[in-house]
Amino acid sequence: MTRPDPVQPADPEARVLAQRLLHTARHAALAWTDPETGTPGISRIAFGLCPEGRPLTLVSGLAPHRAALQAQPAAAVMLGEPGEKGDPLTHPRLMLRVLAEEVARSAPAHAAIRAHWLETHPKATLYVDFPDFAFVRLEVQSALLNGGFARAFRLEPGDLRDVTGA
Amino acid sequence: MTRPDPVQPADPEARVLAQRLLHTARHAALAWTDPETGTPGISRIAFGLCPEGRPLTLVSGLAPHRAALQAQPAAAVMLGEPGEKGDPLTHPRLMLRVLAEEVARSAPAHAAIRAHWLETHPKATLYVDFPDFAFVRLEVQSALLNGGFARAFRLEPGDLRDVTGA
Repeated sequence: MTRPDPVQPADPEARVLAQRLLHTARHAALAWTDPETGTPGISRIAFGLCPEGRPLTLVSGLAPHRAALQAQPAAAVMLGEPGEKGDPLTHPRLMLRVLAEEVARSAPAHAAIRAHWLETHPKATLYVDFPDFAFVRLEVQSALLNGGFARAFRLEPGDLRDVTGA
Repeated sequence: MTRPDPVQPADPEARVLAQRLLHTARHAALAWTDPETGTPGISRIAFGLCPEGRPLTLVSGLAPHRAALQAQPAAAVMLGEPGEKGDPLTHPRLMLRVLAEEVARSAPAHAAIRAHWLETHPKATLYVDFPDFAFVRLEVQSALLNGGFARAFRLEPGDLRDVTGA
């Protein structure tokens, strides 16, 4: 009994599903490398998009991944939460390989990023201006969509940016 | 304005919460190291416990983390799913630093592990005996509980094993 290669190039349906996950996710799981041991760490992060639709998080200086991303910007993000029912492994999820880059408070883009974030994450008003918090861009290098039907799709950054106004 | 060190030693309440997350989780996020690039990867995995209460997953040979864990057994696991309401970052989650070790089908423990897994993951009956599937122990090295109230607790493996009959 052989099974087909599970990873396929993106098709329109996969692009729509990936973009929906990107635009609706408000949190994600982040995989990072511990700078002291070189082994993986994992955290829950707030997730959103910058005004141009590129992935973003808002991180406290107390979070262990803050220093880790500064030391080693290569990271991975998983979006898409299983529902209450059914096999969690059949629910769609999007895995992003990213490079993390902090947005300086003095950067020209900061004000627009902050305003856009507060539209989608209103509770962040309480802490967004704490001095140890920072926005971190998660620049997508490649993506893998597991569509929840035992088939996976490999996506390029452009596949995630086709949406307008979603 | 200073804030207290957010990571504290485990207390009884933290142990109970961590053990509840361990015993109820049926899936998890896994952070692993890509053997080709040395950078982080992330996957959703099935999660359960072996009959002695130690963390376990069941992995297909098609999953990218299968080969990664064989090459680099150090990994990290996150348990605890945000609910539908409220700030997802205030929901409790448990992060485990683990070492992965496959359970050979010929190992004496395999039959009991398989039987126990099918009690907690009945849908796995469909694929547990596929030749490319394997159980992988996730041996806990240390744990961090984020209790969802802006405080975190560092736990040792023994803190996760105090429960009897939970």
